[in-house]
Amino acid sequence: MKTVQVSLGDRSYEILIESGLLSQVGELLEHRGIHPTIFLISNSRVFELYGEDLLRQLSDRGCQVNEIIIPDGEQHKNLKTVEQIYTDLLSHRADRSSTVIALGGGVTGDIAGFAAATLLRGIPYIQIPTTLLAQVDSSVGGKTGVNHPLGKNMIGAFHQPDLVCIDTDTLSTLPAREFQSGLYEVVKYGLICDPEFFEFFETHLEDIRNQVADILGEVIRRCCEIKAEITSQDEKEKDLRRILNFGHTFGHALEAATQYQEFTHGEAIAWGMLVETHLSRLQGFLDGATSKRIIQTVRSIGSLPPIDSVSIESLMEAMKRDKKHQGDRIIFVLLKDIGTTVITGDIKGELLTEAWEQTTR
Amino acid sequence: MKTVQVSLGDRSYEILIESGLLSQVGELLEHRGIHPTIFLISNSRVFELYGEDLLRQLSDRGCQVNEIIIPDGEQHKNLKTVEQIYTDLLSHRADRSSTVIALGGGVTGDIAGFAAATLLRGIPYIQIPTTLLAQVDSSVGGKTGVNHPLGKNMIGAFHQPDLVCIDTDTLSTLPAREFQSGLYEVVKYGLICDPEFFEFFETHLEDIRNQVADILGEVIRRCCEIKAEITSQDEKEKDLRRILNFGHTFGHALEAATQYQEFTHGEAIAWGMLVETHLSRLQGFLDGATSKRIIQTVRSIGSLPPIDSVSIESLMEAMKRDKKHQGDRIIFVLLKDIGTTVITGDIKGELLTEAWEQTTR
Repeated sequence: MKTVQVSLGDRSYEILIESGLLSQVGELLEHRGIHPTIFLISNSRVFELYGEDLLRQLSDRGCQVNEIIIPDGEQHKNLKTVEQIYTDLLSHRADRSSTVIALGGGVTGDIAGFAAATLLRGIPYIQIPTTLLAQVDSSVGGKTGVNHPLGKNMIGAFHQPDLVCIDTDTLSTLPAREFQSGLYEVVKYGLICDPEFFEFFETHLEDIRNQVADILGEVIRRCCEIKAEITSQDEKEKDLRRILNFGHTFGHALEAATQYQEFTHGEAIAWGMLVETHLSRLQGFLDGATSKRIIQTVRSIGSLPPIDSVSIESLMEAMKRDKKHQGDRIIFVLLKDIGTTVITGDIKGELLTEAWEQTTR
Repeated sequence: MKTVQVSLGDRSYEILIESGLLSQVGELLEHRGIHPTIFLISNSRVFELYGEDLLRQLSDRGCQVNEIIIPDGEQHKNLKTVEQIYTDLLSHRADRSSTVIALGGGVTGDIAGFAAATLLRGIPYIQIPTTLLAQVDSSVGGKTGVNHPLGKNMIGAFHQPDLVCIDTDTLSTLPAREFQSGLYEVVKYGLICDPEFFEFFETHLEDIRNQVADILGEVIRRCCEIKAEITSQDEKEKDLRRILNFGHTFGHALEAATQYQEFTHGEAIAWGMLVETHLSRLQGFLDGATSKRIIQTVRSIGSLPPIDSVSIESLMEAMKRDKKHQGDRIIFVLLKDIGTTVITGDIKGELLTEAWEQTTR
């Protein structure tokens, strides 16, 4: 089993990664001192695949397990769903020794994590992410939250899980589009801080896309390790953690401007990385050859839904509303090289338009 | 000006206490590096008394101040009010450099603090408590939250303010019943950890009740100091902080069993301290003379609404639902002496009934 340690003082925890790990979760929790009352939060699709087996493993070990099925999809990532979870938790007498298990993708993890963060001012939770995006990104680092009609992830809290269990086998049931979407966050880790990992990704892309177990496991491990290192050093996103937002200033705006209907998060980030790579070159941070190499690799992951129908004006508007802005300045994470970032709030609107045009051209 | 330091690493902050402090808030914030965007959250009654002057002080110093008026009263301390605040904050483009100022009593502070804790995963906030209860208790320590239909303060987060400004003059406009209610939390501090302060309270009760400025200021300062010491050592209520719950196991149950309609929080805690003092004696922790002295002092603060109509059964039921229980055990903070507590989860139901009967007799 691969293990990544997230070092955060008394909030430290482990990320366990293995093919077939889901069948060992009961045993693992027993070994770690099982909590008597468990709330398994999942959506119906994921619960159907893995829920019953997990319930059985836990109740066989004397746990009282309550399942809470929440609706699937970003449109349900809101306070209404959280309130439903609060009511379920409290009516089954959750207390501070109860544990929430979030079984599913990023939406499930974010919602369940926020409910756990804010019930009784914080109860323990365990993440079992079942999508690539959740495994390499949202399940690690303690960001939890939901959307508000005025913006994505506007409501939230930092709340570290007690444990993250990643079963790479769950990816085999993932729709191809979702798997591909996760790969964009994977390549991002190489771009922001690890040139060797970027090269590994470039040269092993076929095996990764075909989910060759060893290669995929190693890729996920390295992503978790990078995210763990970054969040260990900067839990609350005051500084270093912001580099994780490469591609996200523009990507979030693209999602918002299309009402989260046209692109998956990963696809929006892919477009964001393309524009922000152009921007890095136009701003004079990145040379032409490196920029070309990055764009080629991002594009070779797969085809992306077109962005022709989106206007740069609507994106500018959305960026100003995003929570990464500071006063009137829009903050960008740009690249100086593969593996080296620069954070800037001084990008001129014209340059952004130029980068956008070069990307869509 | 009296200053109490709350030491919590990079979340440390000061509590400033002075008669007339409200008229200096603008200057104080300017001196400390004023934030450009401020959201003043208050209820209409308190805003009418102090709001306009505060707005003027801040806008005179170049701040953009938005006021958010929320409904008054415990029945509005819920997620609906928080959602209204989120919408106000986001529609006025609050960002991570914006500051929320909570001006009012405990309800306002808890709600505004929770909104600040969970907007964009936490933005800065300043507490300006205007009730005695808020000044000596809820504004210090970083507990924020709202009620759920299934229980009080069930939804919440720890979020430390950047500053607490206490103007003791605001107490002169406080209804007598609310002032008296705050005094119960004051005497609690002596009981749980400071025999000298308890004695000071006993001997100066008349001056305190008459709001003699020097005495009252010193009393508030000492309460803040005690709470600051305790929360500095145990921010997340894992251990030491639990002693603050003396009188609260029973007190919270009394509030819940009467649907928060019959007692103020302080009055419920007063009854709770009386029952739990009896309980401490019956359990053999406290001698008879000390128990008598405590009961006499609590009673001499003023008359309490009767509890004859409440049944011990309804209280037991409410205690089991409270967030302080652990599994099936109800946790009590009891007294071994004035200033010395003992935490126990091993109180028999019969003893509780006996303590209840001795209190109501």
